[in-house]
Amino acid sequence: MNRRGRFITLEGGEGVGKSTNLDWVCDWLTERGIEVVRTREPGGTPRAEAIRALLLDPAPQEPLDDDAELLLVFAARAQHLARVIRPALARGAWVICDRFTDATFAYQGGGRGLDMQRIATLETLVQRGLTPDLTLLLDMPVDAAQARVDHRLGQAGGQRDRFERERLAFFQAVREAYLARAAAEPARVAVIDASRPLTAVQAELGEYLERQVAQWR
Amino acid sequence: MNRRGRFITLEGGEGVGKSTNLDWVCDWLTERGIEVVRTREPGGTPRAEAIRALLLDPAPQEPLDDDAELLLVFAARAQHLARVIRPALARGAWVICDRFTDATFAYQGGGRGLDMQRIATLETLVQRGLTPDLTLLLDMPVDAAQARVDHRLGQAGGQRDRFERERLAFFQAVREAYLARAAAEPARVAVIDASRPLTAVQAELGEYLERQVAQWR
Repeated sequence: MNRRGRFITLEGGEGVGKSTNLDWVCDWLTERGIEVVRTREPGGTPRAEAIRALLLDPAPQEPLDDDAELLLVFAARAQHLARVIRPALARGAWVICDRFTDATFAYQGGGRGLDMQRIATLETLVQRGLTPDLTLLLDMPVDAAQARVDHRLGQAGGQRDRFERERLAFFQAVREAYLARAAAEPARVAVIDASRPLTAVQAELGEYLERQVAQWR
Repeated sequence: MNRRGRFITLEGGEGVGKSTNLDWVCDWLTERGIEVVRTREPGGTPRAEAIRALLLDPAPQEPLDDDAELLLVFAARAQHLARVIRPALARGAWVICDRFTDATFAYQGGGRGLDMQRIATLETLVQRGLTPDLTLLLDMPVDAAQARVDHRLGQAGGQRDRFERERLAFFQAVREAYLARAAAEPARVAVIDASRPLTAVQAELGEYLERQVAQWR
């Protein structure tokens, strides 16, 4: 019997329903008597949230260097691993994390064009072999996901201006990087078609969770 | 003729006279018509200083993880390199930096016992081959340096308590790590005996600077 908890990450671009499904996953596990630690990246501890604030500070007079950005992301991750994720897993809790290293590959690597090899070097350095047991990647076409975001913000879709087209190209690159990660690690990353109705998405999420519970008990 | 500026770092433990000699080096170069950019680590830009503040925050309720500390140090360094050091060198200015990566090896590696190999990995990742042209290591026995610090703080030396002995052991490890760096890279790192009178120390500093100027012109 494996008493170590499970480490599950939820990934996906904007508008794919990540928050709703994160709630659902945590409720599903809690209902089965599993101790759930819900957390997020970057952040998850006071110090890591302070690093997150540095990352999000636009400070237009001093752009953040690409390497500095990557190192801050992984500094927050190291702190999060040391203070929250590893202790929770050690006591047998399940950690459900809103984004993890796949998001670094997708957003910084795919979206912003930062060197994937540098990200991989930092991943190896910081994680020391700890990777998620299961990554649920909520995937859908970027156009449809953006339409959901527009709807949520009460904005009409309509004509796309240049900024809007750049934004779509960015999210397209993020999506492709996510799918490349899934293709490289199919045993870990489950690609869930998030364009379907929520009940269908959650039925599939439930199947993946059942499998984790069965292996764990 | 090499128009690129020179990158000079000053290193050493507490009480070796680093600030006084840093002033002297900058004045010496300025008097010779050289544009000097004086800076320090960790820090040197507003964003890097913000990272420094995170590093110095004691936050006793949440100790900073070793890896997170190292990644923050190198995040600040990446930003400092991108925004201050590389642009200054590119226009031909000389950068005089109060501590750099040798200090990471000495304080985090030697003093705190963090893995030297991890530091070396980050050095390679962040610096992309840029190392100081000259490192002036002010060196003297730890006991004598601490006596100077005590004198400056108006404290009597006298008997050493346990905390004091631990502090001395820490600085001894820092000194040894600095000297190991110097032994590994004798062409770059000049070990200056800082226990001598200031005039003797500065005469030697001047010789090293003359050599840099001669190669540079």
